[in-house]
Amino acid sequence: MVGGGQLARMTHQAGIALGVQFRVLAEGPEVSAARVARDVTVGDYRDLDTLRAFAAGCDVVTFDHEHVPTDHLVRLEKDGVVCRPGADALVHAQDKAVMRERLTALGIPCPRYRLVAGVDDLAAAARELGLPLVLKATRGGYDGKGVWVVDDLDGEDVGRLLSADVPLLAEERVDFVRELSAVVARSPSGQAIAYPVVESVQRDGICHEVVAPAPGLPEDRALDAQGIALRIAGELNVFGILAVELFETQDGRVLVNELAMRPHNTGHWTIDGAVTSQFENHLRAILDLPLGSPRPRAPWTVMVNVLGGDYPNMHYGLLHCQARDPAMRVHLYGKEVRPGRKVGHVTAYGDDLDDVRERARHAAAYLTGEIDE
Amino acid sequence: MVGGGQLARMTHQAGIALGVQFRVLAEGPEVSAARVARDVTVGDYRDLDTLRAFAAGCDVVTFDHEHVPTDHLVRLEKDGVVCRPGADALVHAQDKAVMRERLTALGIPCPRYRLVAGVDDLAAAARELGLPLVLKATRGGYDGKGVWVVDDLDGEDVGRLLSADVPLLAEERVDFVRELSAVVARSPSGQAIAYPVVESVQRDGICHEVVAPAPGLPEDRALDAQGIALRIAGELNVFGILAVELFETQDGRVLVNELAMRPHNTGHWTIDGAVTSQFENHLRAILDLPLGSPRPRAPWTVMVNVLGGDYPNMHYGLLHCQARDPAMRVHLYGKEVRPGRKVGHVTAYGDDLDDVRERARHAAAYLTGEIDE
Repeated sequence: MVGGGQLARMTHQAGIALGVQFRVLAEGPEVSAARVARDVTVGDYRDLDTLRAFAAGCDVVTFDHEHVPTDHLVRLEKDGVVCRPGADALVHAQDKAVMRERLTALGIPCPRYRLVAGVDDLAAAARELGLPLVLKATRGGYDGKGVWVVDDLDGEDVGRLLSADVPLLAEERVDFVRELSAVVARSPSGQAIAYPVVESVQRDGICHEVVAPAPGLPEDRALDAQGIALRIAGELNVFGILAVELFETQDGRVLVNELAMRPHNTGHWTIDGAVTSQFENHLRAILDLPLGSPRPRAPWTVMVNVLGGDYPNMHYGLLHCQARDPAMRVHLYGKEVRPGRKVGHVTAYGDDLDDVRERARHAAAYLTGEIDE
Repeated sequence: MVGGGQLARMTHQAGIALGVQFRVLAEGPEVSAARVARDVTVGDYRDLDTLRAFAAGCDVVTFDHEHVPTDHLVRLEKDGVVCRPGADALVHAQDKAVMRERLTALGIPCPRYRLVAGVDDLAAAARELGLPLVLKATRGGYDGKGVWVVDDLDGEDVGRLLSADVPLLAEERVDFVRELSAVVARSPSGQAIAYPVVESVQRDGICHEVVAPAPGLPEDRALDAQGIALRIAGELNVFGILAVELFETQDGRVLVNELAMRPHNTGHWTIDGAVTSQFENHLRAILDLPLGSPRPRAPWTVMVNVLGGDYPNMHYGLLHCQARDPAMRVHLYGKEVRPGRKVGHVTAYGDDLDDVRERARHAAAYLTGEIDE
C-alpha cells in the first residue's frame, strides 16, 4: 500500500487475519502505519524510481490516498505492476474535472458544473450556476482543502486562485438536506458488495460523524445511492473499495459529490458494525478473493472522529471513556496529537440511535478534551 | 510479549486499535507474530540476558506461552521489570503440582491427585485413584503433550517415564461429560470480567472446536465455573487473561483441569463473537486500562481450529470458504502448513446453533483439505 496513514494502518490490521504479507510505502518511519507494520519502506510516492523499487516483488499495489501522480501509475502498469485500482480508474478520484465529465457522460446525477480556466469562465459559471458557487481545485484536495465557497467574484481570494494557475472546477452550491455515503467493493472478477448507505456529518469540510444506516432514508433512495455507486464501480472498472459521497436534496434526489477509491472515513464504522470491515473487503477485492458480507451487525452504529484537541495526552481521556462505557470501541492511530488532526475514531452500536449517538459523541469529545465531565 | 506465536500475532492485531507499541521476543524471524509486527527481537526466551535486553524499555512484559523459566521471571522482577502476570502467579500455570496444591488449599474442586517421585508413589496413586489414571509431567506440557493415560503400571511407557527423572503428577481419570472453559481477565486495579463459559471439544488433546456459550449449561453451573475462574484470578493475583479449563461431570460438578495465563484457544471466538476480544482485554488488563465488555454479540458463536493437513497451500480452500459463506470469519496465522499444526481458525456466529456449527466445521474441514466438496 502506497501511503502510511491510518487507512494503511487499519488495512494492515485487517490483513493480519487474512495472512496477507503487507508492505507499506511510508512518508516517514513514524507515520501511523509504519508504527505497526513489519515491512516498511520509507520514501516519496512522487518519485517514480521509489515507486518502482517499492512495487518490485509486490503481487498487487494499492493506495491509501489519491496523490500518486497519474503518469507514474501508468508507467508502473506498463512495467507490469498490478495496480488496484488501476490508473484508468483512479484518475477519476484524482481529478475532479475528469470525474465530473465521465459521470455526466454516464448520466449519473451530479451537481451542475463548469471548468474554469480564467476569469471569463468564472463569470460565465456564475451566470449559469448562480452565486454562491463552489470552486474546487481539480487535483490535490482532501478534507475540505482545495474547496472554496465563492459569494463575490471580485473577492481577493478569487483573484489569488485564478492567478495561481491551478485548474479549477466551479459547481452549483447544492441546497442539500444532508450528506450521504455509499461504500461498495468490487473485485477483478466483477463481484461487488454494497454497504448500507450512511449519513455523514461534516464540520469544516472534515467528516465528523457517521450514522449507519442513514436515519429515515427511504429504501428506494438508499437503493438509488447504492445503485449509483455500483454502477460507477463497474463503469470505471474500480478494484477495491469505492466510496461515493452524495448530497441528498430537498426534493429527494441524490447527487454525487466526491469519489474515493480506497477505504474511506465514512466506512470506518464497518470495523465494529459490519460482518466484514471495509478494510478486509478492500484487501479481498484487490487480491480477487470472494468478498465478505457487508451486513450490519446492529440496528445502529455511530462512528465519531477523534480530532486532536488542546490536550496532547489522550491517556486520561481513554481511561474515562473505557471506564464509563465498557462497550465503546476506541481506535487510535498512533499519531501525535495536533489540533484538528484525525488521531482516532470511536464507534458505538446498539438498538437505540439516540443512546448510541450520545455515547459515541461523548467518548470522542472526552478524548479530544472538548469536555472533561 | 515473550513468544512469537499466533497468540502474540492476534494480540498485536488488537493492540493496533489501542495505540499500543508492541514488541515481541520471537523464536525466529519468520514465526507467526514476527511476520506482522514492527518491533521484533529474535532470541531465546530461555536465556536470561536475552530476556533482560528485550525487557529494557518495555513498560510491561507479558507472555504468549508458559515456558519462560520461573527463576528468570523472578530475576526480571528483581531488576524492576513489570511482568504481568507476575512470576508468583504464572508459576501456577507452569507447574501442575504447584497449581494442584494451591487450588486444593483454596478448596477449589479439582480431580484427586498425587505427586509421583518414583515407582512406589505410582503404585500408591493407583490404589488411591484407581486405574486407568492420568500421568502428567508437571512442567512443559501443552496441547496434549506431557499427558499419558496409564492402564497398566507395568507398561513399558510407564517404566520409561519413571526412569526419565521428570517430576510427575498422577490424577484420577475423571468421567466427564464434556470439557468447559471459563476465560476471565483481571487488572492490577483488581477489576475483572468473565466471558460466557464455553464448551471445548478436544481431539487428541488439542482443542478442536469451541461453542459459546456452552449449550444447555444450567445457569448455576455457569456461574459456578465463572466464580471459580474469578476466585483463582483474585487469589493468585493474576494480571491479564486467565483461562480455566474444566471438566463437567456426570453428577453436575465442575473440576479444574488446567490453567493458562494468557489469551487462550478457547477464547478465540471472542474476536468475532464478543464486544471486546480476549486479546484486547489481555492488553487492557496488563496495562491497567478499564476492561472491555465481554458480552457475546450473537446467540451462538462457534470457533473451529484449522489444523494443517496434507495440502500445503490453503489458497483454493480459502476461495471456496469465502465464496460459499460470505459471513465466515477466517483467521490465518501466517504459518507454514504442517500436518496437525494449528495454522488458523474459523468463526461463525448466528441464531441457530446447528447451522452455525455446520458452517464453521465445513470451512475448517475445507481449509485443511479434509473435504473437497
